[in-house]
Amino acid sequence: MFLEYRVEPTASTHDFNRANQMLRAFGYGMVDVAVIGAGQTKYGNHPSGLKGMWAEAAERAFASVDQNFEPRHVDEAFIGSVAFGGGQLGNTAALLTEHSGLEGIPVRRVENACASSGFALRDAWMAIKSGQADVVVAGGIEKMNDLSAERRRFWLGVSGDTEWERLAGLTFPGTYALMARRHFHEYDSTHDDLVNISVKNHMHGFENEMAHIRKQVSFEKAQSGFMVADPLTLYDCCPTSDGASAVILAADHVVRQFTDDPVWLRSSGAGSDYLALHDRPSITQVKATQQASSAAYKAAGITAADVDLAEVHDCFTIAELLATEDLGFAERGQGGVFAREQRGVRNQGDVCINPSGGLKSKGHPLGATGTGQAVEVFKQLRGSVEDARQVRDAEIGITHNVGGSGATCAVHVFGRDRS
Amino acid sequence: MFLEYRVEPTASTHDFNRANQMLRAFGYGMVDVAVIGAGQTKYGNHPSGLKGMWAEAAERAFASVDQNFEPRHVDEAFIGSVAFGGGQLGNTAALLTEHSGLEGIPVRRVENACASSGFALRDAWMAIKSGQADVVVAGGIEKMNDLSAERRRFWLGVSGDTEWERLAGLTFPGTYALMARRHFHEYDSTHDDLVNISVKNHMHGFENEMAHIRKQVSFEKAQSGFMVADPLTLYDCCPTSDGASAVILAADHVVRQFTDDPVWLRSSGAGSDYLALHDRPSITQVKATQQASSAAYKAAGITAADVDLAEVHDCFTIAELLATEDLGFAERGQGGVFAREQRGVRNQGDVCINPSGGLKSKGHPLGATGTGQAVEVFKQLRGSVEDARQVRDAEIGITHNVGGSGATCAVHVFGRDRS
Repeated sequence: MFLEYRVEPTASTHDFNRANQMLRAFGYGMVDVAVIGAGQTKYGNHPSGLKGMWAEAAERAFASVDQNFEPRHVDEAFIGSVAFGGGQLGNTAALLTEHSGLEGIPVRRVENACASSGFALRDAWMAIKSGQADVVVAGGIEKMNDLSAERRRFWLGVSGDTEWERLAGLTFPGTYALMARRHFHEYDSTHDDLVNISVKNHMHGFENEMAHIRKQVSFEKAQSGFMVADPLTLYDCCPTSDGASAVILAADHVVRQFTDDPVWLRSSGAGSDYLALHDRPSITQVKATQQASSAAYKAAGITAADVDLAEVHDCFTIAELLATEDLGFAERGQGGVFAREQRGVRNQGDVCINPSGGLKSKGHPLGATGTGQAVEVFKQLRGSVEDARQVRDAEIGITHNVGGSGATCAVHVFGRDRS
Repeated sequence: MFLEYRVEPTASTHDFNRANQMLRAFGYGMVDVAVIGAGQTKYGNHPSGLKGMWAEAAERAFASVDQNFEPRHVDEAFIGSVAFGGGQLGNTAALLTEHSGLEGIPVRRVENACASSGFALRDAWMAIKSGQADVVVAGGIEKMNDLSAERRRFWLGVSGDTEWERLAGLTFPGTYALMARRHFHEYDSTHDDLVNISVKNHMHGFENEMAHIRKQVSFEKAQSGFMVADPLTLYDCCPTSDGASAVILAADHVVRQFTDDPVWLRSSGAGSDYLALHDRPSITQVKATQQASSAAYKAAGITAADVDLAEVHDCFTIAELLATEDLGFAERGQGGVFAREQRGVRNQGDVCINPSGGLKSKGHPLGATGTGQAVEVFKQLRGSVEDARQVRDAEIGITHNVGGSGATCAVHVFGRDRS
C-alpha cells in the first residue's frame, strides 16, 4: 500500500532540494550523517598552548577530507573541554574557532566531565539531523599539563559526587577501586583480569603514533605495579594527557562533494545516572552505558555481536571490564573471563576493544577523549591506520565515552554502510 | 504546480506518525517547536546552593505546564552554566538533573560565557528538530555569591580575550567602556542616552517579583552614579546575581497533550566573532548579534518591525544601546536617539526593550540569563506577568543573549502563532 502526497515546491531551489532530500530519506524521516574527516594531535605533554593544539587538530581534520574542503564550509561547531587550558582562557569555544579559520560560526563549549566531547559529537550529529547545518565540526581539547597536580586531582574528583564522595576523602581512582573490589566479590574476577586489559591496551597502542604511552608492558610488570588505590595499580590507570581532536560531520546530500569514502555516523545514544556510587542499585553495572548503548544499537539496527571494533572508555582497567559487559560484548559478570580469554585482542578475539590503545595507552586528555575515539574509528573503518594496527574487515565500530564514574555516557555507532 | 510522491508507510506506527508529521511540516521540512512551560528562581542573593536553586527553577517550570506533565516526559536536557557553584561541584549537568526528578536522561552542560543558556536553548531546539527528542529542558544556573570578588572578576574577565585584554589590564567593564566612548565619538550619543536605558530598565523591573534590584531610579540619580569605568557608572552596570531558569520545549505533535496555549519557538540564530576588540573592524557594532538576529528573523519570516518585545543582553547600558542598532530597532548610530526618545519603553515606544528589567534590574546570573530571558518572553506572550508589567497585544518576542563583549550571540524568536 502506498499513500499519495502532493507537495508544492517552495520558491527557493535550496529549500526545495532540502525538502526533496528529506522526502528521499523518508523511511527514517531524517537526514543521514557521515564523518568526512578527522584529525588529532599526538596525546601526551604537548608543547603548544590551547590555541595551537586546537589549530593542529582542526587542520589535520580539514586536511583529511578527500576533496574540495575549506573551513568556510563549516556551519557550526561543538567543542568539548573540562578545564580549558588551566582555567585561564575563557569563552573557549569562540576563542578556538577564531584560531582555526572558523570565526563567525555558531559555536559553544560542551562540558560533561570526561564525556564532554562524546556529547559534543552527539550535539553536532543532532545539529545536522535537525536540518540547521550541513557541515559541523565536533571536537575536544584538554591541556592537563598546564594544571598543577592538585588541580588535576580536583578536575577528576569533581566528576564524581563532590559532597558525598570527594569531600569525604574518596579519590577518583578510589571510586573505581570500589567498583573493582565489588566485581571481584560478586563474580570470579581477579586483578589478573585487569592486568590482561592493561597488557592488551599497551600492545594495541604501541604502534599508534598518536599515543601518549607507547610501551609494550609484560603481564608480570603490569601485575606488580605501584599501588594507586587498592586493587588498582599504576598499570590500571590512564595517564593525564594534553591533546585535541576534531571530526567533521556532513549531511548526506553534501557528502559526495567532499569524499567518495565516507564513514557513516549511524546513531547516537546517551544516558545519565546518579553521580554517587551509593545512590546506584549496583556498582558493578554502569546504567548510563547500558542506556546509551542499547539506544544506539537499536537506532542503528545492530547488536553488540555486529561490532568489529570498539573504542571504550578505560580511564581505569576496571572501567573497560565493566564496559565489556554493559556494552553487551560479555555476559553479566563475565568481563573478567572475556579479558582472560583475550576476546578483545585485535584480529584475534570477538571484537577489537580499544584498537587505539585506549585511554590507558593512547592517553586521556579529558575533553578530547570522546572525539579522539571517533578519529580512531574513522581511520580504522577507512583502513588508514598504521598497518600493524589495522583491524581487518572492519565494517562497524563504536565509541563509548563516560563522564565521572558513570554519571554520563555517550555511545556512537559508525559504519562503512549507511544503514 | 505540484509534484507527486509515493511514500510507503513503515512497519511501525510510531515511525509512520513521525514521518507523516514531518511531511505535514514539509514547507519548512522540519518539526515545529513550542515552549510549554517555563520557570525561574528569583534572581539575587539566593539562600540555596546550586542543587536547590536548580530544583526550584525546574519545579516551577514543570508546574507551569497546563496539564498532564511529569518529569518522566523529558527526553533530554541542556544546562548552561559558567562557574558552576563556585567551581566546587563538577559533572554539573548530571548532578542537577539528578536533583530535579530527571535522572537518567542524556544531559550536558553548555558553556559559552554569558551566552551559555542562550546556546543551551538553541541546542535543545535542534534536539527536537532533529527528531531525537519530543520534550527537552533547556536551562541555566549560576551561583555568583559563592564566588569571591576576585573570582567574579575572573569569570567576567575571561569572557573577553585573556592574552590581549585581561592580562594587559583591561577589565570587563573597561571593555564596554571603550565601546561606549567610541560610539559617543562616532555618533551624537552621550552618557545621558545610557542613563535613559538605565532608568527604563529599572522602571520595567520594579514590579518584577523575580528581579534582583527592584528600585525605581531617577534620571538625576542615574546620571551621577559612582564611576566604574569611564563613562560607565554603577547605574550602567548589571549586578552579579545568583539564579536559575528553565524552559520546557516540545515537538508540535506532542504539544496539545500538555497545553492549549503554547508559545512557539519559531527560530534560532547564532553567530560568533573575535574575542578581542582590536580584531574587529568596528567596536560600535556587534557582528555576532547582527548574524544571529538576521538568521533568526529570516528563518521566522519576520523583520525587526514585527517584534513587540525584546529581552536584550544589557550587561552594561551601552550593550543595550548597541543591540538596539544591531537587532534592527534603530538605524546605525541612532541607538542613543532611540533611548532618548523613549522608543523602548513598555506600552509607549516602538517595541518594549527588556520588559523584565533586563540584566540591569532583573539581574545577571551568567549561565541562567539566556533561558531566564525566555521565561520572561513565554510569560509575556501568554499574558501571565504581573498586570503592571504586561506588554499589551504582544504577539512576537525575541531573546538576545551575548557572551563576552560580543564573541558569541544567540537570538531566538518566539510567537503566539506557529509561523
